[in-house]
Amino acid sequence: MSERFDLIVLGAGSGGLSAAQHGARLGARVALFDADVLGGTCVNRGCVPKKAMWYAAQIADMHRLAFDIGFETTPIHLDWARFRDLRDRYIAGIRQRYAMRLDTAGIRVIPETARLVSTDTVITEQGLQASASHIVVATGARPRRLDIPGFELGMVSDDIFMLDARPRHIAIVGGGYVAVEFACMMHSLGCEVDLLVREHLLAGFDQELVETLAMQMQKRGIKVLRHTSIKAAHGKRDAITLEAADGGEHGVYDAVLWALGRTPNSSDIGLENLGVACDEEGHILVDAFQNTSVPGIYAVGDVTDRRALTPVAVAAGRALVDRLVGGHADAKFDDSAIPSVVFAEPPLGMVGLTEQQAHARYGDAVSVHSGRYTPLLMMVAGRSEQSVVKLVCVGDDRKVVGIHVLGPGSDELLQGFAVALQKGLYWRDLKAAIAIHPTAAEELLLLH
Amino acid sequence: MSERFDLIVLGAGSGGLSAAQHGARLGARVALFDADVLGGTCVNRGCVPKKAMWYAAQIADMHRLAFDIGFETTPIHLDWARFRDLRDRYIAGIRQRYAMRLDTAGIRVIPETARLVSTDTVITEQGLQASASHIVVATGARPRRLDIPGFELGMVSDDIFMLDARPRHIAIVGGGYVAVEFACMMHSLGCEVDLLVREHLLAGFDQELVETLAMQMQKRGIKVLRHTSIKAAHGKRDAITLEAADGGEHGVYDAVLWALGRTPNSSDIGLENLGVACDEEGHILVDAFQNTSVPGIYAVGDVTDRRALTPVAVAAGRALVDRLVGGHADAKFDDSAIPSVVFAEPPLGMVGLTEQQAHARYGDAVSVHSGRYTPLLMMVAGRSEQSVVKLVCVGDDRKVVGIHVLGPGSDELLQGFAVALQKGLYWRDLKAAIAIHPTAAEELLLLH
Repeated sequence: MSERFDLIVLGAGSGGLSAAQHGARLGARVALFDADVLGGTCVNRGCVPKKAMWYAAQIADMHRLAFDIGFETTPIHLDWARFRDLRDRYIAGIRQRYAMRLDTAGIRVIPETARLVSTDTVITEQGLQASASHIVVATGARPRRLDIPGFELGMVSDDIFMLDARPRHIAIVGGGYVAVEFACMMHSLGCEVDLLVREHLLAGFDQELVETLAMQMQKRGIKVLRHTSIKAAHGKRDAITLEAADGGEHGVYDAVLWALGRTPNSSDIGLENLGVACDEEGHILVDAFQNTSVPGIYAVGDVTDRRALTPVAVAAGRALVDRLVGGHADAKFDDSAIPSVVFAEPPLGMVGLTEQQAHARYGDAVSVHSGRYTPLLMMVAGRSEQSVVKLVCVGDDRKVVGIHVLGPGSDELLQGFAVALQKGLYWRDLKAAIAIHPTAAEELLLLH
Repeated sequence: MSERFDLIVLGAGSGGLSAAQHGARLGARVALFDADVLGGTCVNRGCVPKKAMWYAAQIADMHRLAFDIGFETTPIHLDWARFRDLRDRYIAGIRQRYAMRLDTAGIRVIPETARLVSTDTVITEQGLQASASHIVVATGARPRRLDIPGFELGMVSDDIFMLDARPRHIAIVGGGYVAVEFACMMHSLGCEVDLLVREHLLAGFDQELVETLAMQMQKRGIKVLRHTSIKAAHGKRDAITLEAADGGEHGVYDAVLWALGRTPNSSDIGLENLGVACDEEGHILVDAFQNTSVPGIYAVGDVTDRRALTPVAVAAGRALVDRLVGGHADAKFDDSAIPSVVFAEPPLGMVGLTEQQAHARYGDAVSVHSGRYTPLLMMVAGRSEQSVVKLVCVGDDRKVVGIHVLGPGSDELLQGFAVALQKGLYWRDLKAAIAIHPTAAEELLLLH
């Protein structure tokens, strides 16, 4: 006998929690299935522990700057085990609050993996069966593993948060934001770092800013090796060499992080039998309304082919439930201006189109306005690291279609401009605005 | 014989430089008079050295947090003399760049104070005479001095930047942003601090946020004494007691900072003879176009009765010259959304209306949406300091008329939202926007 619900959600990460909680808020009877801890990637193995580590890295970097601006200092060292405990205690608190909120909302949480057996029914390993006319798949993704010799000698991003001591010399294999963020953080925390990039570094971001970031990383001592495709790892866990496709050898490392992208958790949950369409990598294909190819089955978050970002999953879950439960037939989220920040040192951010994308779409109507400056703190410290801001505009009235920022403060300054861009932002708006001085944010108003 | 120009500017601070440079850019023959160094208050005795000191304070605070999140640390100490030298070298560089730019622009810089002798002519002490049909007064302001016994035992903000050693116990007298910023910075840098406030603390800012900030300051160990009106100082320069109007005694201090507001530099430059109208405190009265009461004489910046902020002076100078030289008869700057940030610890920012102002203007149509949260870094560190974000909205569609933020990151996150607010920002825009996670900025999108 199948228990009946209004809404079934598979996966208690950002997207699933958003859908489940919003459903309950709108009065739906909701069942939420997840065998893992609440919070998914973001809370447990992603944004949150990453940001905590980024702060630790920032503190270490600030301590280096301290000497340069006139402090008498002695070196500081991170006690990795103590840091991990403090961070894990914080994360446990988040999970606890989620559990309380789900309980208060009357959501039925089943700590098991559920598999779809029909378009309206799921079943768990323990045999629990549940039905609903709407089933939301929000099972997320996991770090991609390669089938190459010695892969198991290295870590994926899930593992790196478990470290209780500083690696001496780490290789980070990959060119995406996870690779770049960890390269910067581990270096700031005192590791020697080799970043081994097969092809693109931070594809999708403004390449001028990416190159500026790469130069700054290298200047600080991170070895960035391009065109390096790793085909095997050799040795043992604390003495690893990496073999490149061109025959080159890298290492010896006492730690390797594979940061090769992510694999959607779309297999073994019954999607194949129902004919839910996925792309080659396994991402569930969804339309703008989060519909899969099978009526009654929807998907949100990293398991889908849309942008793998927590706020995107949250917005998708919310909009979907507004439609399914709230009666807003045309509810969908606006994905025209998704901002994103790479928590590198310094942070890199963007919203809207890159120069290349704008040129492809608008041709000669595109104008680009960029500026470089050395931030006040860096100037006082006698450093030369430059920040870069760039506006990509279209037309005679210079409508802003892309904003790109690199430098301290980029992490916090971008959000408000992203809101403005989504509303329709013009050059004249930036010129009419009054600056906040002295900040990094005002530089976007001061371009020529 | 009087040398003839298109534009005469008195004062080479932010407003004067803006007017002079924009004038030259538009082809005007410009004379710029200032007996003091280039850059005025902002560069030499205001925003810039303040922000440098704020960074030093931030570094000291971050170092305290370092221990709390798991670093092994030993105390760090600021070498005030070395810090001052580094900062002064940076500031000298800014002045040098200004001088070069003025030179390149063909602006005639006369390093003397000029006095108006008629509506189109000025004269210096050395007898240099210059005429123009447009004269812009941008002579700025200076720290207010009180005529009370012992005032000379204390410093004003100009002096505090000259310190080459840490005061042990400083009294800061005042309740404005200068007082609050120095109270926080000096405390972060290891001073014992008493903040003696006569009446209002940060008048004009959201009072709920101000009280939250005051509580956090007190919790950290800054003594905030309200309703304390100081009528005399006694002792000697390194052992000062302050006498309050109620007979109470405060101290002994080895340093006192008088932060009692600012006095416009409007006397002794010939304004009285020409009948240029000023308010009781000496601020030159200007209309929305920076016109004074006398045709041909204009004023911008801190010498006027408008907001004493660098970017306001810059915008005013630019708009005025667009009108006088550029032929844009209706050029004026939009002062409807002037953002401002108090670089306290943590920073406090606002743009638009306070709750009280909104209620006075819109009555019951006002709705207020606010949220409190403890930032990630503070949570991991086991701290309890809360950040606060607040939206003041009007009408059923909740147009945002005021944004108020307190907490780490407020300094950088506000600018973009201020741009959006100036364009017309609604609750629905914030709800439709995609967050950047985890940041302080996203909290403005997540309010209920």
